[in-house]
Amino acid sequence: MTATPAAPPVDLSNLREAQAGLRGIARVTPMVESAALSRAAGVPVFLKAEHLQPIGAFKLRGAYTALRRLSAEARARGVVTHSSGNHGIAVSWAARELGLRATVVVPADAPAVKIDAIRANGAELILIADRAEREPTTQRLIAERGLSFVPPFDHPDVLAGQGTVGLEIVEQRPDVATVVVPVSGGGFLGGVATAVHALRPATRIYGAEPEGAAKLTAALKAGQPSRIATPRSMADGLLSPSVGQVPFQQMRGTVTGALVVSEDAIGSAVRFLWEQQGWRVEPSGATAVAAVRSHPGPLAGPVVVVVSGGNVDPALFSALTGVA
Amino acid sequence: MTATPAAPPVDLSNLREAQAGLRGIARVTPMVESAALSRAAGVPVFLKAEHLQPIGAFKLRGAYTALRRLSAEARARGVVTHSSGNHGIAVSWAARELGLRATVVVPADAPAVKIDAIRANGAELILIADRAEREPTTQRLIAERGLSFVPPFDHPDVLAGQGTVGLEIVEQRPDVATVVVPVSGGGFLGGVATAVHALRPATRIYGAEPEGAAKLTAALKAGQPSRIATPRSMADGLLSPSVGQVPFQQMRGTVTGALVVSEDAIGSAVRFLWEQQGWRVEPSGATAVAAVRSHPGPLAGPVVVVVSGGNVDPALFSALTGVA
Repeated sequence: MTATPAAPPVDLSNLREAQAGLRGIARVTPMVESAALSRAAGVPVFLKAEHLQPIGAFKLRGAYTALRRLSAEARARGVVTHSSGNHGIAVSWAARELGLRATVVVPADAPAVKIDAIRANGAELILIADRAEREPTTQRLIAERGLSFVPPFDHPDVLAGQGTVGLEIVEQRPDVATVVVPVSGGGFLGGVATAVHALRPATRIYGAEPEGAAKLTAALKAGQPSRIATPRSMADGLLSPSVGQVPFQQMRGTVTGALVVSEDAIGSAVRFLWEQQGWRVEPSGATAVAAVRSHPGPLAGPVVVVVSGGNVDPALFSALTGVA
Repeated sequence: MTATPAAPPVDLSNLREAQAGLRGIARVTPMVESAALSRAAGVPVFLKAEHLQPIGAFKLRGAYTALRRLSAEARARGVVTHSSGNHGIAVSWAARELGLRATVVVPADAPAVKIDAIRANGAELILIADRAEREPTTQRLIAERGLSFVPPFDHPDVLAGQGTVGLEIVEQRPDVATVVVPVSGGGFLGGVATAVHALRPATRIYGAEPEGAAKLTAALKAGQPSRIATPRSMADGLLSPSVGQVPFQQMRGTVTGALVVSEDAIGSAVRFLWEQQGWRVEPSGATAVAAVRSHPGPLAGPVVVVVSGGNVDPALFSALTGVA
């Protein structure tokens, strides 16, 4: 006897409420046709340019939605997260927008550019020497200060906010036949898949992931979130060892499959987006483009590929593109 | 009897020397196909993305070339220019790269974003209350301090540096049939036209200008540089009242004609470049794109359109695009 899976927590009306709350906060980002990708694919290929959000990544959609939905009491106490990346920037940015206090636990060896962005948004930084201290330090802050924890992906409100990209995709391309989204913890993919599937049930939805961090492939094979040993990739935003429980629930029956890409393909996609689009994109942000370029067979068109972020280390970008 | 016009001062070997000197300094900027413009024009249309230079505009090519070619004595004394725009940023940036002192005379009411950029490059700023004081103040600095003046366009070395964009266009698109370049004092157009015409004599080369600042149209009609009364346009980089003598010499026999565009077309092109390319471009930088979109007849393809700069005032950009 099989247990009936619980209904996933985020539905279309939840997504629409998140979208209404983001009006004037998150940009409706451009949907740009790539002439080169369309020619190569034989069908129109569009890029959803989420790296053009104010913080340089889609993450503000989820962070802002989660903070906005907190109770007045919780808002008054403030929020905490641990992240050395775009989620930390997003939480600090959203906290400033909403006038509440954010504390961000950051490994001391995190990229200077990201630490600076979090500080510039006015958040309190707690620098820790050892990454293993991240969770205990965060737990202590929650206990001592009564802060609300804002997880990067495994939370319905974060997922709902991130999923508003899916609503925009259908608004901008009502005929969309294929969607490709990069996947780390799966909140973005799960949210976008929920939105697109609800509105366009025949559309195929793929998660793109590095071969060294293929946790969606592992989860789809196991039928449940499944931890991979040592995630490795230059796509530093896609290194979660597992997809989350909430995202996986949202992916059931909505996600078509995983597209796994090599490191070379990711680097080549960063270069491609500079040379063919004039965009500065981080490796994580280019991973879905890499998947479309690496895909062996035809994809149903129009294809919409999500470019998720642009906060790339200058030295890495220069090494990949040759640009000073 | 007609006097034989003097040979123009900048030839292909001069341009090639400028290009060699810019290696590692100016970026070889992307040449990006616009799917939407290609579809509308019926021929491939490519955008030469000079707003992706380090200072956000092509101007560093001319400023750096002019400074590099100064004598050791002149370099030791330093340089001066007057500009409230991208030329002032370019001269201060090039001076820092070459380790020499720059003085920039700036009207006190110039955009804060541009004054800040000049200051950040380490130049000495001389703020003046009245724009009429610009030239006398500059002349005084030249006399008192022995500074070398770096004009924005009416100088062979500035023009040669700016013209290296034309060499790149032919390298990136050897089959180029039409080139469209925005025009202010004409150094950029004259330089690009010299380069493209030398390498591809059949290619048509147009200058694009706002209808409220149509000094190229006036010069072509008069057969010589001709001053217009009160140049007006939101394209604040294209407000020179006349093309220069050196640029006009270089345009003879190389430039096909002028394309005049309305303010509405310029604003629409700024919005188009955001929505269709995901680019933040200033009105001056979008003027050649406006010309291609407004052109009534077919253009020979492939067409290369120069997007020249991106340093746009945030409030104006927001008003034109609706983007926060």
